[in-house]
Amino acid sequence: MKKPLTLSLDAMGGSAAPRMVVEGIGIAVEKSPPIRFLLYGDERVLTPLLETNSRVKDITEIHHAPEVITDDAKPAAALRGGRKSSMRLAINAVGDGEADGVVSAGNTGALMAMAKFVLKTLPGIDRPAIATYFPTRRGESVMLDLGANVECNADNLVQFAVMGEVFARNVLGLNQPTIGILNVGEEGAKGNEAVKRASSILMNSDLPIKFYGFVEGDDIGAGTVDVVVTDGFTGNIALKTTEGTAKMFGAFLKEALSSSLLSRVGALLARPALEKFRRRVDPRRYNGAMFLGLNGICVKSHGNTDSLGFANAISVAAEMITDRLNDSIREDFARLSEGLVTDKEAVTSQ
Amino acid sequence: MKKPLTLSLDAMGGSAAPRMVVEGIGIAVEKSPPIRFLLYGDERVLTPLLETNSRVKDITEIHHAPEVITDDAKPAAALRGGRKSSMRLAINAVGDGEADGVVSAGNTGALMAMAKFVLKTLPGIDRPAIATYFPTRRGESVMLDLGANVECNADNLVQFAVMGEVFARNVLGLNQPTIGILNVGEEGAKGNEAVKRASSILMNSDLPIKFYGFVEGDDIGAGTVDVVVTDGFTGNIALKTTEGTAKMFGAFLKEALSSSLLSRVGALLARPALEKFRRRVDPRRYNGAMFLGLNGICVKSHGNTDSLGFANAISVAAEMITDRLNDSIREDFARLSEGLVTDKEAVTSQ
Repeated sequence: MKKPLTLSLDAMGGSAAPRMVVEGIGIAVEKSPPIRFLLYGDERVLTPLLETNSRVKDITEIHHAPEVITDDAKPAAALRGGRKSSMRLAINAVGDGEADGVVSAGNTGALMAMAKFVLKTLPGIDRPAIATYFPTRRGESVMLDLGANVECNADNLVQFAVMGEVFARNVLGLNQPTIGILNVGEEGAKGNEAVKRASSILMNSDLPIKFYGFVEGDDIGAGTVDVVVTDGFTGNIALKTTEGTAKMFGAFLKEALSSSLLSRVGALLARPALEKFRRRVDPRRYNGAMFLGLNGICVKSHGNTDSLGFANAISVAAEMITDRLNDSIREDFARLSEGLVTDKEAVTSQ
Repeated sequence: MKKPLTLSLDAMGGSAAPRMVVEGIGIAVEKSPPIRFLLYGDERVLTPLLETNSRVKDITEIHHAPEVITDDAKPAAALRGGRKSSMRLAINAVGDGEADGVVSAGNTGALMAMAKFVLKTLPGIDRPAIATYFPTRRGESVMLDLGANVECNADNLVQFAVMGEVFARNVLGLNQPTIGILNVGEEGAKGNEAVKRASSILMNSDLPIKFYGFVEGDDIGAGTVDVVVTDGFTGNIALKTTEGTAKMFGAFLKEALSSSLLSRVGALLARPALEKFRRRVDPRRYNGAMFLGLNGICVKSHGNTDSLGFANAISVAAEMITDRLNDSIREDFARLSEGLVTDKEAVTSQ
């Protein structure tokens, strides 16, 4: 019989921590498979919090961590100085095999630096990437990298394409996911050197993946491809741009619907439909960015999320573990790499 | 007395051209100051089109152009081979002083290459940028570059900041517009070299402009700053991402509101409010990207726009001319440049 899933949580990361972390556990247990939680943080704060929820208390083990990584800490400094932080001890639990995965809503750069140091990368992966899935007009798509790598070369982008493909197949359950590289036009001559070379590598490789070619910014929401590959600078800005646009759209809609008596009555009648609509674009439902390419499961929750969003990040980690995502990435990457010519090799052989 | 404004139009650019160009003139004359149009394109097609609208015919002069620049033409090839194209002859009209500005919905890269060749850049500007304004939660903001320069150094970004500031002051009528550089975080240590150096130049310069610092993708829709400065790769993707998100949002809303009898009745009652909302986010209202930094007014309309969108692009060009934008950029740039240390100088003096 399989032992229940164990997740370690950084209880101190995020603007509403640790309360939203504890309440997030309460929400997650309602819908996820059985999970045991190792909760890392200040035990003087955590112990009384757990007292208020016996269901959470039963499945949660508090581990005292005397330090907290602040949001403005630089990754290198956090790595050096934060050895007793809640974030680091939660990651160590995965490295030591005590937990199957870790979730934190803390400092993204510090989390990536520590996770990379403790867990290492999977064979064949130079740099891990941050990925998320999001709603589109066609369903759901994955985008990566979202900020781990501000500058990327062609090989990095090709590796992201392969990791994204494996993710879309194993976690989103898509049969033959299509991959696109984000660019400023669909024609081959457009864009910077990295995207042009990555596209040419993917076009000419024997990889058994469906490479669509270049996609543009409006293809993200349209769901033109299942996996959108980009560097961390562009990906981070594109993702946050969708958030900002959605918020603006929502604010304008609310304003319009409350502008007259008639529209208020109309909105009242349409309330169930509007609620459904709001749920569909609720960013909390998509909270939980995966660190792909690490030898261990690590999920980053949005720092400003609430308990509902944190619960979703927990579910994302649980799914990645249940679906044995890293085993798939490892196997598929080894298999796929045989068909893969790296940018350096391609240049050398020219 | 001032002579009426003269605009030259590329009648053949855009997927719905030339009909939407001619109909666009018909819409623009209703609201713009008096304009005379020089219409460049195939006279065998244009002459009968004008016959259908006497009001447009009265203010429009057809100039035959035997060639058309296709959407997939490369800029260098268009520049070399397209000397008798509708696009080129329309630009020449501005270069020759026959028109005060040009509008085209054709191939962006070709338009920029030709406009730069014929009109040249303003003193102090290394590279022109594509700019647009768009709705935000706080009002309207400007973003540049949107695709003219796929790779940018710090000096390019600083010049974009100055041009954007002048634009926001003179065309949007803002008193002390704030400027932000688009980045993956607000802290100074984040981002690539170009944005870090550009930020440091703007922080340390004596420029009389209000530099806010770094902004993130969600600040675009929030309207955190009046001018968003970025390289053409990121800017193009960010702009198109907002378009895609808005379309997705609109489609989801429509689906939700037609999902039940009650919601359909509600939507009917709220129709005037929903219409107001739709108009507020209608991309056609924001159609017309300005080429800033050229020694002449050149506006690019979206290729897929209709007559309403093209009419808006005409209004944008008319406004830029009426507001004497280029004189302001020239004067302000000369004045501002005194306080400006370029990246190279900064490096040399270190």
